[in-house]
Amino acid sequence: MSELRKDPVIGRWVIIASERGKRPTDFATATPKGKPGSCPFCEGNETMTPPEIYAVRSHDTLANTPGWKVRVVPNKFPALRVEGSVDREGVGMFDKMSGIGAHEILIETPMHDDFLQNRSNEGIMLLLDTYQKRMVDLKRDIRLHYIIIFKNEGERAGASLSHSHSQIIATPIVPKRVREEVDGSLEYFGYKMRCVFCDIIREEKRFGSRIVYESASFISLCPFASRFPFEIWLLPKRHMSDYSLMTQQESVELSECLLITMKRLAVALGEPQYNWMLHTEPNTAVPRNPWPDIRDHYHWHFEIIPKLTRVAGFEWGTGFYINPTPPEDAAAFLREVEG
Amino acid sequence: MSELRKDPVIGRWVIIASERGKRPTDFATATPKGKPGSCPFCEGNETMTPPEIYAVRSHDTLANTPGWKVRVVPNKFPALRVEGSVDREGVGMFDKMSGIGAHEILIETPMHDDFLQNRSNEGIMLLLDTYQKRMVDLKRDIRLHYIIIFKNEGERAGASLSHSHSQIIATPIVPKRVREEVDGSLEYFGYKMRCVFCDIIREEKRFGSRIVYESASFISLCPFASRFPFEIWLLPKRHMSDYSLMTQQESVELSECLLITMKRLAVALGEPQYNWMLHTEPNTAVPRNPWPDIRDHYHWHFEIIPKLTRVAGFEWGTGFYINPTPPEDAAAFLREVEG
Repeated sequence: MSELRKDPVIGRWVIIASERGKRPTDFATATPKGKPGSCPFCEGNETMTPPEIYAVRSHDTLANTPGWKVRVVPNKFPALRVEGSVDREGVGMFDKMSGIGAHEILIETPMHDDFLQNRSNEGIMLLLDTYQKRMVDLKRDIRLHYIIIFKNEGERAGASLSHSHSQIIATPIVPKRVREEVDGSLEYFGYKMRCVFCDIIREEKRFGSRIVYESASFISLCPFASRFPFEIWLLPKRHMSDYSLMTQQESVELSECLLITMKRLAVALGEPQYNWMLHTEPNTAVPRNPWPDIRDHYHWHFEIIPKLTRVAGFEWGTGFYINPTPPEDAAAFLREVEG
Repeated sequence: MSELRKDPVIGRWVIIASERGKRPTDFATATPKGKPGSCPFCEGNETMTPPEIYAVRSHDTLANTPGWKVRVVPNKFPALRVEGSVDREGVGMFDKMSGIGAHEILIETPMHDDFLQNRSNEGIMLLLDTYQKRMVDLKRDIRLHYIIIFKNEGERAGASLSHSHSQIIATPIVPKRVREEVDGSLEYFGYKMRCVFCDIIREEKRFGSRIVYESASFISLCPFASRFPFEIWLLPKRHMSDYSLMTQQESVELSECLLITMKRLAVALGEPQYNWMLHTEPNTAVPRNPWPDIRDHYHWHFEIIPKLTRVAGFEWGTGFYINPTPPEDAAAFLREVEG
């Protein structure tokens, strides 16, 4: 079973996934990419994955058989597991806790080479809707303090299978980066009585130069202090702290904004590998929720990072990033693309 | 000229290096690796770099000619420059400042394929001594709040030239990750009146299981909450906040501990690519130094990270790491290696 360990200097938690137990020689082996036929995520190969947790499928089909459009299964090699209790323990001066949580794979499409940017609006909506459903379900478990949904596209972005999929990890603590963002938004709200993300949207609309795409309800932009070339944030214009507060109509508009943004990125940069992460509010149902007013000060959004540069010693040593492409230039390139 | 920009939510600064001004097509080109003959870091090619800032060379040779052992030159495409003043400016709700600083390349050896793990103790000492000299010199400039020295070995680790080199970047602010570490050590000192790193060394000696190598004055270990497989910290046993406080005798011992540690890593993992970062105290000579008692609570050290896994959406989205190799296992593998 995995365990969580806390760095005694800066308080960062890490997951020590002993089950994956990699030995020195395990790192040399090439990444399996999966081919149609042998790919566990392809339609027809449902028995190659653990039994499904959720699926969008025709009413006349059985679970774990073909006929689905989106399918959610537990990760075969999970970093965290649902079974067990949250045990906290000191080991000398160090702190650890049991690796309780969830680790699910969301198979986005039954077809092997059906990349996101080539799908229809409806295909994207199905994905975004599944994100919402799994998030709502996982939040019922009040041991789970945070649910992160993310997508690794391509080997450089950390994907071990090429068939399009997203991942859902639920953690028994609020991760450091999320905590910083929520605390930062609370501090800003304390000064100004306004949401910092709403203010960013207002400023970006005034400047115009960093906007990638804008619709009635959503906006995608290259943020002022982008860490990476062509980094993009996608935000709802309406103030909403949680992804699950999005209406059905907004979900339709989000799929359109996301699809256009990803198509532009694919065209401008030649289908780059990328990560995206959905940043939403922590589970407010947990005991002693530290952010009682989070609906006022936090604002959910997507962060999209194309893998164009290497993160090196400078970034690891300092948490400071060197970005060789000003976000104004990146946004201009992306706006020029038809789509 | 580069500029520094601050993220309005979490306060992270980034360097927008407009001079490097990468366009979408620039990312597709393969990384130049440099070959003997055309490599600007090789002996005989001194005119291919900007003029040297510092070198260890025979007394009968001229600057920028052959005959050196270690050579420091300005980066040809610097992220930050020394010229100019530190201008701070608001742009609407956003904050930026001018990209003042320094960016130097430390060429570790005149020979192209002379990898660190194959060098002599004396070769390593020369390198470590040059780190000290450049750091002391750069700290005289009180516009520079932090000096980070790091090494990217291999393309996956972010190196664009294969000839062994380290980099020195001096920044006009203390980077977020460093600030967290210094603040963390101050908080611990406030509770316990002890240095957290000294306590870590004591605990690790008591456990024994995470130690890689130990000499009279230095220790290398896989930290309790390692983010990455085979992550290693190397610390002086004597409490010292700053790298420049190290004595000549300690420098000899450090080169031995570092060399043995790196040899073991090279043997156990088949010469992996890696980053290392020297974490030392911020420049205390700056105006309004926020850590007047830093000599009590901070403790310099190296962090060494082999590039074995990919950092993916989960890590970027949360600042939370999944490490598939428990540090106790990693240290055991490294202890088993002869060297």
